[in-house]
Amino acid sequence: MSDNLQCGKHRACLVQLYRHLLISCRQSLHLELALAEHPTPCSWSEPAGGPEPGSCYVPGVTDTELVTRYYDLFNRGDWDGMCALLADDVAHDLNQGERQVGKPAFRAFLERMARSYREQLRDISVLGDGRGRAGAEYVVEGEYVATDEGLPAARGQRYTLPGGAFFEVRGGHIARVTNYYNLTDWLRQVGA
Amino acid sequence: MSDNLQCGKHRACLVQLYRHLLISCRQSLHLELALAEHPTPCSWSEPAGGPEPGSCYVPGVTDTELVTRYYDLFNRGDWDGMCALLADDVAHDLNQGERQVGKPAFRAFLERMARSYREQLRDISVLGDGRGRAGAEYVVEGEYVATDEGLPAARGQRYTLPGGAFFEVRGGHIARVTNYYNLTDWLRQVGA
Repeated sequence: MSDNLQCGKHRACLVQLYRHLLISCRQSLHLELALAEHPTPCSWSEPAGGPEPGSCYVPGVTDTELVTRYYDLFNRGDWDGMCALLADDVAHDLNQGERQVGKPAFRAFLERMARSYREQLRDISVLGDGRGRAGAEYVVEGEYVATDEGLPAARGQRYTLPGGAFFEVRGGHIARVTNYYNLTDWLRQVGA
Repeated sequence: MSDNLQCGKHRACLVQLYRHLLISCRQSLHLELALAEHPTPCSWSEPAGGPEPGSCYVPGVTDTELVTRYYDLFNRGDWDGMCALLADDVAHDLNQGERQVGKPAFRAFLERMARSYREQLRDISVLGDGRGRAGAEYVVEGEYVATDEGLPAARGQRYTLPGGAFFEVRGGHIARVTNYYNLTDWLRQVGA
């Protein structure tokens, strides 16, 4: 992240620098504290009406920190942890596909993905508006290991694919994930 | 935007509230000032090495304000204004398509779009990381007025389509726009 920190060089960016430092400090401090105090997967960010039953949110953790945690858990293959960040009625918009609703559908999706793809996300940029909307852009480094329904045959093809997602955060949980990537580009890379 | 402002109700959000107020005040103040002082289309945000030749950036205007301006100009059909916000070598990633590079290609794309589609974006959420990366999510209210190459015949079909984009800002200009929407959903709505 620091390689993109152009702020300190420029006179007009004190506010941005302040925000960057604030975010960095809070991320490292709060996430460390949270991991130490809440070893079980939990839901963070600021609930509008206080923490929901069964959640263990950490006060003061922002929506963008929640999204950062979501992708950290993805890269660790921690599906339980990811699902704990979701609202029960989470809406999940599949790339170029339909909307699925609810944690069980989300969990089934993660498991289907895990059977067919080995993926790590890198260069993750998390974006926010500080009011419950967030986004992320990243690059997927993947391997297509088992044929997915309706798609070309898998034979261990590797791919590098930019992607992004948009989020709504409600009551300290992720209430919507809308995923996007260039399916045409992916199909070309796996030799469809 | 204010209907999503849950912060004030909650004890743990002073920092977010502060950031929200800061962003809101700067948006309204700087954009008003900028519009009053720079009536011609111009490029904003913080250039890393000072303003580029020919640009008229306003110090202290953030990347998200630049993106807000981009969509405002889109909704006003001001293609000159939009192009003035772009870097000369802007990269434009078409939804499910290829990357086009350069302002002339971007301009040609806008003109092709204007022939086939009448669109207004609403519910625009602009997201940022304060370090040159931004995003936006919105809903397109559109009408398909003239057949676009390779797509179904136009007969004035109306559509409502969520979409989003990611941006890189460099030297006060938009250096990349990556657009996403659900093409499958659009095709369904125009009766393909």
